[in-house]
Amino acid sequence: MAVSTDPLAMLTEVNGLAAFNRWAGIEVTAADEGTAEIQMSWREEFGQYTGFLHAGLVSALIDTACGFAAATLAGISLLASHCAVNYLSPAVGQLFLSRARVVKAGKRQIFVSADLLAQWQGQWKAVASGETILIRADD
Amino acid sequence: MAVSTDPLAMLTEVNGLAAFNRWAGIEVTAADEGTAEIQMSWREEFGQYTGFLHAGLVSALIDTACGFAAATLAGISLLASHCAVNYLSPAVGQLFLSRARVVKAGKRQIFVSADLLAQWQGQWKAVASGETILIRADD
Amino acid sequence: MAVSTDPLAMLTEVNGLAAFNRWAGIEVTAADEGTAEIQMSWREEFGQYTGFLHAGLVSALIDTACGFAAATLAGISLLASHCAVNYLSPAVGQLFLSRARVVKAGKRQIFVSADLLAQWQGQWKAVASGETILIRADD
Amino acid sequence: MAVSTDPLAMLTEVNGLAAFNRWAGIEVTAADEGTAEIQMSWREEFGQYTGFLHAGLVSALIDTACGFAAATLAGISLLASHCAVNYLSPAVGQLFLSRARVVKAGKRQIFVSADLLAQWQGQWKAVASGETILIRADD
Repeated sequence: MAVSTDPLAMLTEVNGLAAFNRWAGIEVTAADEGTAEIQMSWREEFGQYTGFLHAGLVSALIDTACGFAAATLAGISLLASHCAVNYLSPAVGQLFLSRARVVKAGKRQIFVSADLLAQWQGQWKAVASGETILIRADD
Repeated sequence: MAVSTDPLAMLTEVNGLAAFNRWAGIEVTAADEGTAEIQMSWREEFGQYTGFLHAGLVSALIDTACGFAAATLAGISLLASHCAVNYLSPAVGQLFLSRARVVKAGKRQIFVSADLLAQWQGQWKAVASGETILIRADD
Repeated sequence: MAVSTDPLAMLTEVNGLAAFNRWAGIEVTAADEGTAEIQMSWREEFGQYTGFLHAGLVSALIDTACGFAAATLAGISLLASHCAVNYLSPAVGQLFLSRARVVKAGKRQIFVSADLLAQWQGQWKAVASGETILIRADD
Repeated sequence: MAVSTDPLAMLTEVNGLAAFNRWAGIEVTAADEGTAEIQMSWREEFGQYTGFLHAGLVSALIDTACGFAAATLAGISLLASHCAVNYLSPAVGQLFLSRARVVKAGKRQIFVSADLLAQWQGQWKAVASGETILIRADD
């Protein structure tokens, strides 16, 4: 798939191809060259044992936003190499939003960072931050 | 909850409390002091856009196995602080198994590492490795 | 040592106590609540085998800047727990500058991120980014 | 430089080219296909402000051992991409030893992990663990 001239349309299409993203209800809400934003509404089945958002979903949101930000510059022939997440606060919310931006798009690899915000009773709070490294795989 | 004298029974109970783990069908298959093993069978809705296991589920398995290994030594009053995952190979499989072991259980924090293996046509292959840091929260 | 009301004076004093920082000629050039900036001039003995700045010094600068930023909020009773560095570009320069800012100062731990810039022939370039987690040890 | 048939001889030569390694007195003490071991004796100028081994030197040892382990399989046309270090215990010792092993050598990237041990009064203790990702740059 070529890189679309409309990043949001391209990411929305890719997002729709991912079964897990459809199950989780992840939506692409913004995109530009080197940036992407996704959102997901809370559901009960997303919880870990105390009812907060499961770390796997925290990682999924950060990893997805990072991959999408990279794809706006490099297309989708990318392999995730590394993802690291810092859990800043308990991930409690009705709505979750992850924003990612490319830090460096090199010849072989792309470094991306992202934040995860949670909305609770009208207030937004940063609950996690993370970074990914993706490898260009189109050669 | 006190630390059970039977790590496997204790982790099975905790695992059953996590809605996401129930949805994903994660099972605790082994546990001892400082180690834990979990398994999950492939389902279509776990896929990312090319059909491999979604990075969020890779992270979920590694993070869960690490947290469980830590809990065998320190109980469940633990907060995840950091999780890093290396994607070694495309995560394709019919069955996934993550094994974690505590590297260091300190006074304030616990360092844990884990591997993720995928079974495909009877062969096991390492598809990811990762590590987590957990903070003791029982004070 | 109590947290000084003047972050720059406090950090300059701490910096002077570190033998490695004196050897490397690291200087604290700015500090405020939750932020710190350090600089170091290139010397031949800092090189790895191709003559770029050695990864150990890249890490030392990022780790030091992060620790200093945390100290402006929490004093120096801190233990480094984790440090991760991304090498964005070859670290070539006559002068290196690392700027760190606290992302989250929690009750038990402090998350900090930093950039490393290199100056070469009057131009500044980002050569690395990183993050650290520090644990409060004053209890 | 071609990959030598004698990993220890090859790494000893590369180590001698790095000015920082010569300054620090780092020696390559063992190497095989996919593994490397280095040692460094304590000197006063390696200290951080409380006299422990500076985090930059902890990282330098882990990063160097990892790079050397990768070089035994892939030669020295490698670029470090990412290095993460966990500080398990205060790094106090008269002698430091880092052992690294390749976790996965892929077509584009190599994942390596390492431990750092410190010897104090005849006892060895693990003080840090870490991992690096290196990119093949020979194309």
